[in-house]
Amino acid sequence: MNRNIMNLTAFQDAYPNDLSHCFGCGKNNAQGHQLKSYWSLDQAKGEGGEEQTFAKFTPQACHTAIPGFVYGGLIASLIDCHGTGSASAMAYKQAGRALGEAPALRFVTGKLEVNFVAPTPIGVELTLVGTFSEIKERKIIVDITLSAHGKICAKGQVIAVKMPSSMGAV
Amino acid sequence: MNRNIMNLTAFQDAYPNDLSHCFGCGKNNAQGHQLKSYWSLDQAKGEGGEEQTFAKFTPQACHTAIPGFVYGGLIASLIDCHGTGSASAMAYKQAGRALGEAPALRFVTGKLEVNFVAPTPIGVELTLVGTFSEIKERKIIVDITLSAHGKICAKGQVIAVKMPSSMGAV
Repeated sequence: MNRNIMNLTAFQDAYPNDLSHCFGCGKNNAQGHQLKSYWSLDQAKGEGGEEQTFAKFTPQACHTAIPGFVYGGLIASLIDCHGTGSASAMAYKQAGRALGEAPALRFVTGKLEVNFVAPTPIGVELTLVGTFSEIKERKIIVDITLSAHGKICAKGQVIAVKMPSSMGAV
Repeated sequence: MNRNIMNLTAFQDAYPNDLSHCFGCGKNNAQGHQLKSYWSLDQAKGEGGEEQTFAKFTPQACHTAIPGFVYGGLIASLIDCHGTGSASAMAYKQAGRALGEAPALRFVTGKLEVNFVAPTPIGVELTLVGTFSEIKERKIIVDITLSAHGKICAKGQVIAVKMPSSMGAV
């Protein structure tokens, strides 16, 4: 892990324990991907500019589509979890509250869209970057790029909605 | 597995061996989901009507989002692989060729869209049904529903494009 982000808290690590079992990003799912998303450094330091989030993930050999390339389902999963994580962090920011403070501000995906613009090579670290195209109290839209070696391989959009109480939101 | 489909070949099982490593649906990926898609029975019997495909999959306990529900990344993955598999089968049908006959007609996803219309319960068999809204030689659009207990939980669309030779198509 980059030294610069060691002292930052991942959005997903701030989820309450009982909402941290997601296969894509839950810290309590030992078999899952445990994706971790952060504010980009200039945001974390409060330097302003466009609000931006990032995550890094290196797929395993088994996450193959055609040999040499990452399967689309994993790419969709990473974009999905980076989107809902970014939405949660943005909701805390908008509310002027500390990340993870109870009651939890947790978001789920209403709609996910992924454009596969180039084959994603396997065995290298992927970088996800999220920006925000709409921010409302109950609906946040996150636009995400997924890159390998600095080249965008997929562009996605997550329409995240505040988790309904029927799903266990506190 | 339903007795009625035991004698049918899954689309993905007809992929050539070197294109059968996908984590979502490859028969040669021991760690993957091994999703298997089929023509709906009336189609397989040549009874006509709207062309329709189906697949069934039961997520494991680890495939959790919020406890009790399936994580969106798996749902996206199932829709993705059912879409490209259905596209391949349709391409063979359109060409008047037997499923799996060389040279392979293999499709990859250009764009994936998933609408999560209701939380998907975990621990039950899910059913995917695919229909076709556009059929061209190099581009096939598959519309897919994912249901649990007969209730639609997600609606997706896969824009499948014929695999480019750069990805290993034969």
